[in-house]
Amino acid sequence: MKFLVEKDALLIAINAVSKAVAAKTTKPILECFLIDAKDGKLKLTATDLDIGIEYFLDTNIEEEGEIAVDAKMFSEIIRKLPDSMINISLNDQKQLIIECEGSLFKLVTIDSGDFPVLPEINAEQSIVMKQSMLKEMIRKTIFAVGIDENRPVFTGCLIELKDGTLNMVALDGFRLAMQSKVFVGNTNEFKAIIPGRTLNEISKIILDDDSDITIGVAKNQGMFEMKNCRAVTRVLEGEFLDYKNVIPKEKELRVTVDRNLFVDSLERAAVMSKEDKQFPIKITVDGKAMVINCVVQSGDVREELLVESMGKNLEIGFNPKYLIEAVRASNDEKLNLDFGSSISPCVIRPTEGNEYTYMVLPVRI
Amino acid sequence: MKFLVEKDALLIAINAVSKAVAAKTTKPILECFLIDAKDGKLKLTATDLDIGIEYFLDTNIEEEGEIAVDAKMFSEIIRKLPDSMINISLNDQKQLIIECEGSLFKLVTIDSGDFPVLPEINAEQSIVMKQSMLKEMIRKTIFAVGIDENRPVFTGCLIELKDGTLNMVALDGFRLAMQSKVFVGNTNEFKAIIPGRTLNEISKIILDDDSDITIGVAKNQGMFEMKNCRAVTRVLEGEFLDYKNVIPKEKELRVTVDRNLFVDSLERAAVMSKEDKQFPIKITVDGKAMVINCVVQSGDVREELLVESMGKNLEIGFNPKYLIEAVRASNDEKLNLDFGSSISPCVIRPTEGNEYTYMVLPVRI
Repeated sequence: MKFLVEKDALLIAINAVSKAVAAKTTKPILECFLIDAKDGKLKLTATDLDIGIEYFLDTNIEEEGEIAVDAKMFSEIIRKLPDSMINISLNDQKQLIIECEGSLFKLVTIDSGDFPVLPEINAEQSIVMKQSMLKEMIRKTIFAVGIDENRPVFTGCLIELKDGTLNMVALDGFRLAMQSKVFVGNTNEFKAIIPGRTLNEISKIILDDDSDITIGVAKNQGMFEMKNCRAVTRVLEGEFLDYKNVIPKEKELRVTVDRNLFVDSLERAAVMSKEDKQFPIKITVDGKAMVINCVVQSGDVREELLVESMGKNLEIGFNPKYLIEAVRASNDEKLNLDFGSSISPCVIRPTEGNEYTYMVLPVRI
Repeated sequence: MKFLVEKDALLIAINAVSKAVAAKTTKPILECFLIDAKDGKLKLTATDLDIGIEYFLDTNIEEEGEIAVDAKMFSEIIRKLPDSMINISLNDQKQLIIECEGSLFKLVTIDSGDFPVLPEINAEQSIVMKQSMLKEMIRKTIFAVGIDENRPVFTGCLIELKDGTLNMVALDGFRLAMQSKVFVGNTNEFKAIIPGRTLNEISKIILDDDSDITIGVAKNQGMFEMKNCRAVTRVLEGEFLDYKNVIPKEKELRVTVDRNLFVDSLERAAVMSKEDKQFPIKITVDGKAMVINCVVQSGDVREELLVESMGKNLEIGFNPKYLIEAVRASNDEKLNLDFGSSISPCVIRPTEGNEYTYMVLPVRI
């Protein structure tokens, strides 16, 4: 194996693929990159078996070959090399030789035969969208993914394409976050629960620009394909909650709030709330006045907001963290909060359209 | 107590004074700010007994008074309030009332009588300099402060004003860092060993601009006085090392290196070195060629640099971390490295002037 590669290009590949390197493992091969030089292309791969990422670079390949090398050491060395061309090759002792200006490194390697093969995925049903759009949908949903390993299906994010709408849904038993995008004319359908952890890593390699990404599902794998990069993740087994039916359709009270003023008030109330282990805050709606308050041993807070309201007055308790995360994830100027009774959930939606729905369950006060 | 204060101004005071709030303590009063409204001035104070910081604000005071309040809670609340005027007062139940637009907080307080009084310092010997200059002198020395509590005097930084020169020196038994500034005509003299930890906190409140700071020493306290802010720190007892006499005066070899190329090579060599618990690197000087190398189990590195050298050739070992920190702290384009034998220290100085001296002891290879 022998090839010449530009430092900056290699570093972009390293940064993407690193997200799939195993953090703690008893299998050293999972802490490696697979370096594969073939057909004029350099392919860098990493996998922790839950997620696999591969990145392709057009490279001047003098001699084909493949080898596995410790990912952390290789990354650190490349990062610290001068911004120049790097010569990478394998010597007779199976050492990886890295040469760049006055620097010469020799690294021990592991045979590439031990490296797990990333599954080839033939996703018959898929969707193409802008990377920035997918990145934003993930950001606005993933915070609600559960962490309770006893309910494994809730530790993932549902991605469902149906009736020309892509829905992304996360929930943890206390709150729900859902994003929807309409793809006019799209007749494809799929459904997969992607683990929150791998989806989070994937969102880091998705660019914040207009370039395309293809999402597809096949067997037990989800696939995210970009121009030079492909990520494959395992999907969670099991039935996701019938999320559409848990969101209340009726309401007794609709409050329209200024998003920024509301989240600021909630965050101030949360300062007192967390003085006493996330002690609930109380929200009181009385006509056009919304009062948020929280009384703990070290003091109390009272926040008053002017709102628009329609329906009967209400007193209801919440864990402020759940409301804050939902309101923060929305970015409209105004939000509708729909309430039933003091024991039914609050549903948060934009005042126009239905791109997102957040639902937060109340707590007894 | 009752006063009106602008949020931004109060936040600047909070940020400065917070550096002296005790992190872990069994005395709740040390986790408090002392709020003292008197003579048209608001004074905010915090101390962990090692360091004390007070900050003065010109404020519209309606009613004088003083009280102690939990620093973390108070800071968080003020930080999250709108950018507006804040009304702060004390009610009959000794609760601190914070009012700002629609927000109303009531916090429990602690009697100010329990708050430790910061020592008044009449430093007869002192020096005035630009804050940015002192900040830089600290940054370029403090990294060499020792962490071994068995040698307490080395856990501090010596600040010595003598013969019109201010010297700042830190050392830990393996390396030494020294900065010097000449103050023409200054006849004051003082000497104090400031604990590294408190000096580090003080450096955070020193501005990076041309405004003045006064440094003085009295009894067992060091004092740093800025326009609205005063920091007082305990000093360490004991005799500091006779640092001037440990720096070798003779040399067998002088190597002049390009600072950036040298530190980059060292950092690459350090990648291999730390694969094996800071395994030493070997530096070989042979005429105009300097070679840095390090061989560990997982591989090896060889860095070659073109240098200017005068004297005999040499092979010498170092912990790369110590060399890197010293070279990084210097910011000249070229550096002189002076060597004796392979068991005597390397002395690093600028090629012109003597504003700084770094010394690093070798290790056996």
